[in-house]
Parts: sequence; structure tokens; C-alpha cells
Amino acid sequence: MPDRYTPTPEDRFTFGLWTVGWQGADPFGAPTRPALDPVETVERLAALGAYGVTFHDDDLVPHGSSDAERSSAVKRFRAALDRTGMKVPMATTNLFTHPVFKDGAFTANDRDVRRYALRKTIRNIDLAVELGATVYVAWGGREGAESGAAKDVRTALDRMKEAFDLLGQYVTEQGYSLRFAVEPKPNEPRGDILLPTIGHALAFIERLERPELVGVNPETGHEQMAGLNFPHGIAQALWAGKLFHIDLNGQSGIKYDQDLRFGAGDLRQAFWLVDLLETAGYDGPRHFDFKPARTDGSDGVWASAAGCMRNYLVLRERAAAFRADPEVQEALRASRLHELALPTAEDGLAALLADPAAYEEFDPAAAAARSMAFEHLDQLALDHLLATR
Amino acid sequence: MPDRYTPTPEDRFTFGLWTVGWQGADPFGAPTRPALDPVETVERLAALGAYGVTFHDDDLVPHGSSDAERSSAVKRFRAALDRTGMKVPMATTNLFTHPVFKDGAFTANDRDVRRYALRKTIRNIDLAVELGATVYVAWGGREGAESGAAKDVRTALDRMKEAFDLLGQYVTEQGYSLRFAVEPKPNEPRGDILLPTIGHALAFIERLERPELVGVNPETGHEQMAGLNFPHGIAQALWAGKLFHIDLNGQSGIKYDQDLRFGAGDLRQAFWLVDLLETAGYDGPRHFDFKPARTDGSDGVWASAAGCMRNYLVLRERAAAFRADPEVQEALRASRLHELALPTAEDGLAALLADPAAYEEFDPAAAAARSMAFEHLDQLALDHLLATR
Amino acid sequence: MPDRYTPTPEDRFTFGLWTVGWQGADPFGAPTRPALDPVETVERLAALGAYGVTFHDDDLVPHGSSDAERSSAVKRFRAALDRTGMKVPMATTNLFTHPVFKDGAFTANDRDVRRYALRKTIRNIDLAVELGATVYVAWGGREGAESGAAKDVRTALDRMKEAFDLLGQYVTEQGYSLRFAVEPKPNEPRGDILLPTIGHALAFIERLERPELVGVNPETGHEQMAGLNFPHGIAQALWAGKLFHIDLNGQSGIKYDQDLRFGAGDLRQAFWLVDLLETAGYDGPRHFDFKPARTDGSDGVWASAAGCMRNYLVLRERAAAFRADPEVQEALRASRLHELALPTAEDGLAALLADPAAYEEFDPAAAAARSMAFEHLDQLALDHLLATR
Amino acid sequence: MPDRYTPTPEDRFTFGLWTVGWQGADPFGAPTRPALDPVETVERLAALGAYGVTFHDDDLVPHGSSDAERSSAVKRFRAALDRTGMKVPMATTNLFTHPVFKDGAFTANDRDVRRYALRKTIRNIDLAVELGATVYVAWGGREGAESGAAKDVRTALDRMKEAFDLLGQYVTEQGYSLRFAVEPKPNEPRGDILLPTIGHALAFIERLERPELVGVNPETGHEQMAGLNFPHGIAQALWAGKLFHIDLNGQSGIKYDQDLRFGAGDLRQAFWLVDLLETAGYDGPRHFDFKPARTDGSDGVWASAAGCMRNYLVLRERAAAFRADPEVQEALRASRLHELALPTAEDGLAALLADPAAYEEFDPAAAAARSMAFEHLDQLALDHLLATR
Repeated sequence: MPDRYTPTPEDRFTFGLWTVGWQGADPFGAPTRPALDPVETVERLAALGAYGVTFHDDDLVPHGSSDAERSSAVKRFRAALDRTGMKVPMATTNLFTHPVFKDGAFTANDRDVRRYALRKTIRNIDLAVELGATVYVAWGGREGAESGAAKDVRTALDRMKEAFDLLGQYVTEQGYSLRFAVEPKPNEPRGDILLPTIGHALAFIERLERPELVGVNPETGHEQMAGLNFPHGIAQALWAGKLFHIDLNGQSGIKYDQDLRFGAGDLRQAFWLVDLLETAGYDGPRHFDFKPARTDGSDGVWASAAGCMRNYLVLRERAAAFRADPEVQEALRASRLHELALPTAEDGLAALLADPAAYEEFDPAAAAARSMAFEHLDQLALDHLLATR
Repeated sequence: MPDRYTPTPEDRFTFGLWTVGWQGADPFGAPTRPALDPVETVERLAALGAYGVTFHDDDLVPHGSSDAERSSAVKRFRAALDRTGMKVPMATTNLFTHPVFKDGAFTANDRDVRRYALRKTIRNIDLAVELGATVYVAWGGREGAESGAAKDVRTALDRMKEAFDLLGQYVTEQGYSLRFAVEPKPNEPRGDILLPTIGHALAFIERLERPELVGVNPETGHEQMAGLNFPHGIAQALWAGKLFHIDLNGQSGIKYDQDLRFGAGDLRQAFWLVDLLETAGYDGPRHFDFKPARTDGSDGVWASAAGCMRNYLVLRERAAAFRADPEVQEALRASRLHELALPTAEDGLAALLADPAAYEEFDPAAAAARSMAFEHLDQLALDHLLATR
Repeated sequence: MPDRYTPTPEDRFTFGLWTVGWQGADPFGAPTRPALDPVETVERLAALGAYGVTFHDDDLVPHGSSDAERSSAVKRFRAALDRTGMKVPMATTNLFTHPVFKDGAFTANDRDVRRYALRKTIRNIDLAVELGATVYVAWGGREGAESGAAKDVRTALDRMKEAFDLLGQYVTEQGYSLRFAVEPKPNEPRGDILLPTIGHALAFIERLERPELVGVNPETGHEQMAGLNFPHGIAQALWAGKLFHIDLNGQSGIKYDQDLRFGAGDLRQAFWLVDLLETAGYDGPRHFDFKPARTDGSDGVWASAAGCMRNYLVLRERAAAFRADPEVQEALRASRLHELALPTAEDGLAALLADPAAYEEFDPAAAAARSMAFEHLDQLALDHLLATR
Repeated sequence: MPDRYTPTPEDRFTFGLWTVGWQGADPFGAPTRPALDPVETVERLAALGAYGVTFHDDDLVPHGSSDAERSSAVKRFRAALDRTGMKVPMATTNLFTHPVFKDGAFTANDRDVRRYALRKTIRNIDLAVELGATVYVAWGGREGAESGAAKDVRTALDRMKEAFDLLGQYVTEQGYSLRFAVEPKPNEPRGDILLPTIGHALAFIERLERPELVGVNPETGHEQMAGLNFPHGIAQALWAGKLFHIDLNGQSGIKYDQDLRFGAGDLRQAFWLVDLLETAGYDGPRHFDFKPARTDGSDGVWASAAGCMRNYLVLRERAAAFRADPEVQEALRASRLHELALPTAEDGLAALLADPAAYEEFDPAAAAARSMAFEHLDQLALDHLLATR
């Protein structure tokens, strides 16, 4: 039955067609579930309280479809959207499943593969815009290598830049209101993938012709596969003004890409992530990119989709209670978070250099003796997460 | 006895005073070696064929020294440099050992600690320039957190930017020819460190007031502690024009920071790294930031320092032989590396969109059937590394 | 103020003297806190509701003390125990701090170091028994290597076995009621440590002369440093009848040994661990082996010690509620946990071979179509952990 | 052309049918290569100098084949073996691809799945013995869980023991000369797999009814996926008398299971592994369990198979040269490896306790001052690996 953790479209939860639609094939096993009709997905997610869906071109229109099949698939999908009020805020291209992309797409050594990848992307951009998407995600999962000479990384980055410059030119010339979001991942399916973390993607974007058109779409598990703190990465993306989209899921540490439902995996990082998204003014969709457990039938598919949203709402409530608690506010003060917000030298460099209190008269031992009081603060956070306060 | 792997100053190998000077204290053990006089270090490294040394302020002038002690220490050091011809191309500040930095330096929550850290840095910049350094490394090992509320990362990045902007202003106003190199590290000694990878550091730099003054100083083991491919990261730094310095060492995978001698750890990545540095025109010093095994006495200290240089030279020879081998060149062609170097759309976007060969007439299955021939190419590389060709 | 999460001695929480006594020295930093008197530790922990304390020989009697100093230290400590009612259920030996152990203790290449290590251990065993300990932990943190030829592992295991056989002989001959608990760790401070996981330790024990005297003392963070599921490892130790003691703390994935307070780190594994300990009949102490954050003063030391116990009690409550919930019991049935408890072939091999339903008539596709219903079950667990049911 | 690294059957190299036969499907991509006929595999591997092949039941006889198809497939395969002289020293069962095994085989919650798995295994054991196999590998890749309540690990270990006890009974009653080798893996395709490392498998075996029938089949990459030192694990397996088989391949650190060709990945561990296998008297096959790069066509398949063998032979030569070098022998003495081989207390416990040189008169500081001289020793090893001596 509905409770205060039951989602509504106002919560802006979205799901990829490929998430609930995952059939369960893995490196050692065959599919365990039948294919899911995109129309059914739209309807079921709408019934669960979602705001929208997202798709790869091939999710909606299978590779090799005729133009008529394509039109028909799009029409049925659009009708389902209209019927349910579901939105399509984001779309993306499948540049990884077909063997033609075995060595990459925008950075494949083969020039004709790169040209095909660009055209395939552009074709789906048109559809994405037609369906109302404002963000276009680019996950370069095949852009990488397993061995050292197979890819000249500097040259590959030239090709990657060329691709994004061309795409930026295309949407500009078309007058589309579409921005791109690069999705980093450190490895899998390639031994090492280019732009492996949020940081690498942010840095790359700065070298583009139209950097303002491109941001990032970080995924929880991808950063955690490199042992990185996901909320820290998101904070840097926000700081750079580049959090254009986000993929939420769960991951249990450094291993293969698990795509657990949101809330599974590192629960404490999930808490801090929600705290950050809700307080930093991120206004994009909360997009789940997860895989329902392969062990489960369709019951598990919809249970896990519901779980993603429920867990987000629970964490949102807990994080808000944490921030509202006067004892927490006192603890933050005791830990001098308010001092971090002060400029270090609001009076400028010359004043800093001339200030004997800053160096000549500063007593490091006395300063070192002040407790940061972080243990108490973190216990308060855990108490709020666990609702024991 | 000398052989073709015996280094000379022309090879531009440098070492930190703190590397051979490490006394062996670790989280579970007391020092196993006595302190090393910086003058002895200069002399012994010169005798081994090194080009120069680098230092933290506290390596040369112990924390708490009087001005007279400081002058005397600098004078003796300088005399040793003059006597041996050793250079000091880089220097840095110790902003991590003293308890005052327990919560960070440039991003400590305590404002007076931040001011002290800046003044301590500026004081050593003067000395660095005086000794001829042109690169100033900034490793923010204490800038980070173990718990979620302890650090507001966006605010901390504001403080970090403020610090680098002030330092940039300082060297500009002083007319120094000194550039900064940020050294990323994912964790240890903090649970999570800000700017955890090369990518995050590169992205951060773009938001500074004087980005042209700041680059990166990546360390082998630091990137490998995040499971990242070190040569790939260096390639992106080079691509961005930001490889201002480099720290070479060895690391055996994702674990605590090992600082093994160069050549130990991931030998194949070391091979590709040397191949990259030698072919990409990197002209800075080859700086070793390693720790001689704690199990060893001073014999091991100098054996490992010599080993770092020898291993670099062996790998340099092997990488050059790989690139010169006609069968390798043929294999690179078979893997279409030459095609990666071609623009994807040198004829522009419109021509790409109009080209039916790029999409309408492209046969993905036929293209997919072409072998990339990477296994043969990688075996050739291994054969060259192992000198079996 | 006390609430239902306030511990009492009946909860059997214990702490090492070295935990709250950790002064904060780390690989890159000097101590941030003064030394703590063991007597104060006993009194403060008693006041917080702990059951007992544990110690390394050197924690109680600093290395190099005279016999008179030793007696006096032990007497004061004992008096504090008597005064507070605190117990000493476990003790251990410091075989890692002194440089003499730089290459190991029981497996040091130097025979005289091995003999010294055994005598140092035996000396403290006498004291441990005198203070009432029934478990003696052996963490071989220095038994390992950083390079391949430095340690012949098979020979080292011979020496390790010899050491435990001698210790077993000693306690048997003395008539002590003392059992040993081997504490595995994969690395740090050595590059690779012998007996790196619970599994390796359990296997080793089987080759001893008196295997019944030796079990394991697994530590949360140590297994998680190898990416292993801690509750799974504990389950195997229990299954083998070998969980003689346990070290509880927190760790944020594969990196350096963090020793966070219990509850920090992987909260969901902590939940399953408590569920397991409380339902599997483990009746030993709940021992915390953690390090209060180095950033904090003594406020943080006692806050974090209290937090360890509080978090255990919260998780104990939540796990009990999970097991008691009728919907959970139904979900467990839907996931066929009750079928896992049935023998696969209670009727024996011949009957299995003769049963056509087992193979000839078995329909794999039909069986595969049954959902395991794990997503719903796991969401129920998360709901109980977060108290949203 | 043949050189001294060209293999012959005397080198006892074997390959799984599924290795060169891997078609390149991965979690994000479709197959890139056509199926390979087992007969062609036998012939091509024989031509390359291999000793034999191994197989899963489904590799040779596709799931769902009729009895007639099965007979025919076996007959063709056997003829190819006879023609080429290739052996089948090992076989195994596919208990992971079919969706029926989605929750495990021997430890599936569903009892009928467990019974089917046992019967499927027994059926292939008969074929394995008929083809001359003496080792039967058991990789329990689906025995595990992604969430905490889904599997009661202690109960699952009861079922695992029951399965191996039944299999042991079967081969004993049949009079087969077949031993089992358990293959550990930490994760993938399950979130956590039971018996995750060599150590856990060795410990499990000790609780079986016929432990003498069961050993381990460790795989390079599987241990390295947990960050463990593979040669160390193999040494413990040898020490326990349990190295019944081995799977050689390459892995680049903690990430998804890469199955690179032997020699790729951690080259230095590969060197120490070969050194160990060749000096410890391991006399089983050198079995490669790898996957040719998905980017490559059949050229890469056979190039990588040849590379596996070549690299082993190169490393065998280098390791032998290392052991034969008088300077190495001197260095081993300087590092006191000969002392590690001496009993610690060959004179017994009483003598140790009575020896003042062992404790009362022992000077730890003086002993600590001795260098272990490991850096020189390890550099000699690297020099031999790289053939620079």
C-alpha cells in the first residue's frame, strides 16, 4: 500500500528501457527472462509512479529494422507515452553490442566504423529530439583497449574530440535544445576504457569546440569500480557546472559492473549522494541504470524498479532530517564547516604575506590540538540514516 | 661494472631526498634505518649517475629550525650541488606530516591552518626558485575526508582554487619562472582524497585564474591504486599539454601505497609508459618517488636507486627496438593504427551526412568480420620486452 | 541519555587497548594524540558499558621495561580490572612494531628472530592466562614479502606450522585453557602476507599437530581489503567450527587498512554479519579492533568507541525484527531457503542415479522459469535495516 | 620459424575447447567469431605443439543433443585425438550457462536443480574417464549470491559437501582413477561466490568424506581478482599436497575476469609462478584457460594460443637461469633463505625455553640492524626476467 515513500512523477524518477528490459545474459550465462515490450515498460513504470523512460536506439527499434518497422515502433511507443504522460528526457545510442564496434565507435581504428557510429548517433539524435529529450548520453564503453599498442590514446582522444565537435555542430545547426552527457567508466567491456572517471571526462570536455554543450552522466557503480567516492565525484561535477544527468544504481566494491538496484551496494554513499543532489540544486531526472537480478522473474523486475525509487525517497527523508537537526548543526559548527566556507585570504595575497598571525606567530602545535570532532558528526549521520534519532 | 644500462646526467634521472632518505616507519612499525644527510644523498646519487634531486621544505630544513640553522642547511646543500653538478629541477612542501595538517592544508576546515599552509608553501617557493627549480609540486595528501559530512567538497574545491590562484599570483608578481604540478592520489592517508586521479586534477586546473601555470605530476602507483592504466592517464595529460612532471615507481595493484622501485610492480605498464614518454617528446626529468624496502639497510637503499634508473634504461632500449622492428610496423598497419590517425570526417559534417557509404550502404557485418590483429601485435611487444626477438 | 541501544556488560563488547589508545601516527603523519594510560582505558570503557579489554604485551608493558616496571604495570592494570569488573578474554603479542620483525616473526628468514618471537609470545601467554584470557590471537602482519625470491612460501609455512605446534605444546604442557586464533590479512604492512584470508588460515590449521587448539580471528576490514564478503567468510569459519574470536570494524572497500568504527564502511554487510553472529550461536566477545579518526581528540576516541557498541545493538535489533517478520518468512519460503536445508539425496547415491525425475524427465527450461524472488527479499531486508517497516 | 621457445607435447600444454572456441560474447556485446568445431581445435592445437585438450560436457555435445548426436560427436572427437595423439587429461561440467543454474547447481536453493546438476556431472564423468581424464574440475561459478538473505552460506556448504561426497562415492564405487579439483573464484557471475579463494577451497576439502580425492584447480586471474599473490596461493596448495591441476592465464588487476593469454597481465607474478611450478615438482599439465581477444579473428585465436605456450617457455628458461646464477645463489644466502629452511627449534621446546640467547641475551636492535638485502635479490630476478644478465 502507498506510504510516504511511494513515488510520484514530481519526484522525476526515470528508467532506461534496457534496465527493466535486461534479459539476464551475462558472460557465463544465457538469458533468463523473455524480452519486454517497450510499451509494457512504459505502462508498468507509469503505474509505479515513474516520471519517464530513456532508451538506446536499438532498445526501441531493433538493429536491422526496416523504415516501416521503425515508424511503427516509434508510433506505438509515442502512443504509450501520450497515454501515460511519461516523458523521455534522455536518449542514447547503442555503440557497443554489434560486433562492428568491437574496437570502439568514435575511436575505432577503422575509419568507416567511426563514420558509421557518428551517423548512427545522429540518426537517433533526431528521434530523441522528436520525443522531447534534452540530454543525449554518450557512453563510450568500447572506446579502449586490452593491450598497449592497440590504441594510441592521444590520437584516439583527437578522434573523440572530433566526434563530439561534429555532434555539437549538428545540434547547433539543427537548432536543437540538446546537450550531451559523457558517461565515464574505467573498464568492462574493454580492459581499460578511455575517459575512465568523472575527472577524465570533465577534463576532456574542456578541449572541445563547444564545451558548453557537453557535461557528464556519472554512474554510481562506474566510479565505485575504480574505488572512488561517488558523492565526491558528483560534487566536483556540480562544482564544474557539468552534472547534466546522473545514473543511479548499486555496486559492491571493485569488481565487475553489477548494476544493483539503488540502495543495494554502498548504502552510506547512497545517503550522502542523495543529501548532495537534494541540497545542491540538481534539477535533472533521477535516472536509474540498473539490472534486476538475473535470478528473478518479472516479479523481481518490478519489485527492484519500485525499490530503486522507494530507497531514494527514504534516503531523501533521512538526509533532510539530518540537515534539520539542531544537534547536527551544532556538530557541523564544532567541526568548523562554517570556517571552510570562509575565504582563506579575503583580504588578498599581500595581507596574507604581511600577517604574522598566519606564520611567524602561528603555533602549529596548539592548532593541531583542536579536535575536528568528526566521529560524533558521522555518528549523528548514521543515526539519522538508521532512524535511531 | 658499467654497461649500456648505466645512467648518466643526460638521462635526467632525479630523486626526492625523502625517497632514499625514507627511514622505514610504516603504520605498524618503527623506523629501521637511520636518518640520511641530504649532502650524502646528493653525493651518492651523483656517483650513481643521477641528474638531480628534489625536496620538501622539511626534508632539507627540519620543522622548527631557527633561521640560522636553515641558512646553514641550505648552504651545505648548495655546496654539495655545486660540487657534484647535481640540479634541483623541482621542489615541494610538506603539508601532511605535522598534526596541524590532520584535516588538510589548503582545504582544512580551520582557516588559520589554510593560511599557515599557504605561507609555508610560499616560503619554500622562494627557496625552490633560489635553487633553480622550475616546477613546484603540490600533493594534497591530507585534503580529503573519512566521513561524509566532514568536508563539503564543493566548498573545499573553492578553497583549493583560491589557494592555487594565490600561489599563481605570487609567482607571477615575483617574476618567477615556476610552474605548478598537482599530484593526484585517490586515498591514503585520507579515506578519500580530493582530486583523486589525473583526470580530476586536469579538470580542476581548467577552473583556475591562471590555468597555464598549473599542470600535473602523476605518480605510477597513485593511479594504479585506483586500478587505472597509468600510460593511458599520462597520454591524456600529454594530450591536454599538462604533463609538467612525473613520479615513477612501482605498485602491485589496488592496495596501500607501495612506492616500489621503478620496474617492480606492473612491468608491462612500465614498458608502455617508457615507450610513451620517449616518443611523445616529454622533456622533463624522470623523477623517482619510491621507497627502498624497509627490510633493507643502506645497501638496499642504493641498490634500489640504481635499479630504478637501470630498469628505465632497459625499458627504453626495448621500447625503441619494438618501434624500429619492421614486423611491428607491419603489425601496427594490420591493426590499422594508421587509420586512427586519419580524421573521421576531414571533409566536414555535411559531407559525412551526405555519404551513403557511411551509413545507408555500410555493411556492419562485413566490417565486423575484419580482425583487429591485436593478439599478434601484443605478442610482438612482449617479445621485445623480454628480448626474445 | 541511555536508550535501548546503550550497552551493558551482558552484550560482551570488548576493545583492544591499542584501539582507543591509537595516537594517530600514519604513513604520512606524526601522532595527533597523547598516549593513553591503560588504567584510564579500562575505566572509561567500563563506564561506557563494555565487558572487557584485550592487549598486546607492549600495550601494557612497553618494550624494554625492567621486570619491576612490568610488575608494577600489571599490578595497576589488574587493580583497575578488579575495580571495574572488566574482563580480559583475549591477549596477543606485538610481533610487528620493532624493527627486528621487519622480515617477519615466526617466518623471519633469520632463525634467531624466530626464536625470539616465540619466546616473546610465550612470555605474554603466561600473563594472558594469569589475567584470565582464554583466547590468544596471532596476527602475523609481518609474515610475508614484497618480492618473489625473498620468501620461500612453502618453507615459510613449515616454519609457521612449527611455531604453532610449539605454542600448542606449550599451553598443553602448562595445562592452560587457552586456544589460539589466527588473524588473516591480505597485505599491509607487507606487500603480500601469508595466510591472507579466512580460507587460507582455516586450511593451514588443518595441517597442525593440534588443530583443535587453533581457530581464526577474522577482522571485517581485512577480508574486505581483498574484496571478499565478510559474512560469507564468517559463515565458513562457523561451518568449520573455527570462529574462536572476531574483530569488528569498518572499511570502505579495497584500499589501505582503515579500521573505521563498526557501522562505518559497508553497512549492509555489517547488518548481515550481526544477523549471522546472533543466529549462529557465536558466544565469544564482540571485539572491536578499530582506530578513532586521527582528526579527532579524545572526544572522538570515546564517541567512536560508544558508536561501535551502539551500532552493533541497532543492527542486532533490526536483524531480529527482520527474522521475526511474517512477510520475511514468507519471502524466504518463496525464495526456497527451506529447500536448501533439505538434503539433495537423502535417499543416497543409488536412488539419485535411478531417479528419472532427476535427469531423464527433468525439464530444465521449466525449472529455470521459476523466479527466485530475491529482489523482494532483499528489499525487505533493507526496509528492516532502515526501519521503514 | 621454430626456436627454443617452440612447444612440444613433452611440455604438457593443454587448452580447454572453450578457450580458443570462445566466440566473443560479453556482457555488452554479441559474438564476433563463428563457432569452432572441436575437431578443428584438436588438429590446430596439435599442430602448434600442444599436449592435449579439455572440455565441458556442453562444449563437445551441445545441450539438448540426442543420444545419437552425442555418440557421433564423441566418436568424431575421439578420432581426432587418435589421429593427432592429443590427450584429454581433464574434463568438467557446464553448470552455469543454462538458466536453470541461475541460482547455483550443487547449492541451488531448488532441490531438483541440485539433483539435476549432480546427474549432469556424473554423466560427464563417465565420458571423461572413457576419454582418459584423471582430473575432473569443478568450478562452482553460480554457487553464490548477490544479496544477504538469498543464501544461507552454512547450509549451502552442507549441500556443497554433500555433492562432493556423492561424487567421491561414485568414482570410488566405479573404480575410476579420477580425482576432483575445485576451482575457486571470488565473484562474477555471482556477486560473491562460495569458496572464493584457494584458501577457502583447501579448507572446505578437509571437511569432506574423502578429502584425498579432492584438490584444487586455481586460476591465475581468479586469485588476482581478489588482489592475491597467485604464486603464494599456489605455494600453499602445493604445501597442502593439493595442487591437482592449474589454469594459467593473464589478468590486469582487480576487475572483471579478463582471461588474457598467459604472459599478458602481471608478468612478474607469471615469472615467479613458472619458477615455482618448475622447481616444486608439479607434474600435471600446464593448462591454459584464457580467451583470445574479442577484437580478433581466427588469426588472433591461434596467435594467442601459441603465445601462451611460448611465454611459458620463455619464463621457464629465465627462471632456470635465475636459479643457476652463482650471484643469485650468493644473494639468496645474503638474504638468509638457507636459514629459513632450518627448523626454528630442532632441539625442542624445552631447549628453546632454556636458551638465554633466544630471549634474555638477545639484542633486538643489533638483530634489526642486519639488512635483508632483498632489493639486490629482486633486481637480479628482474635482470634475469629481462635477460639483461
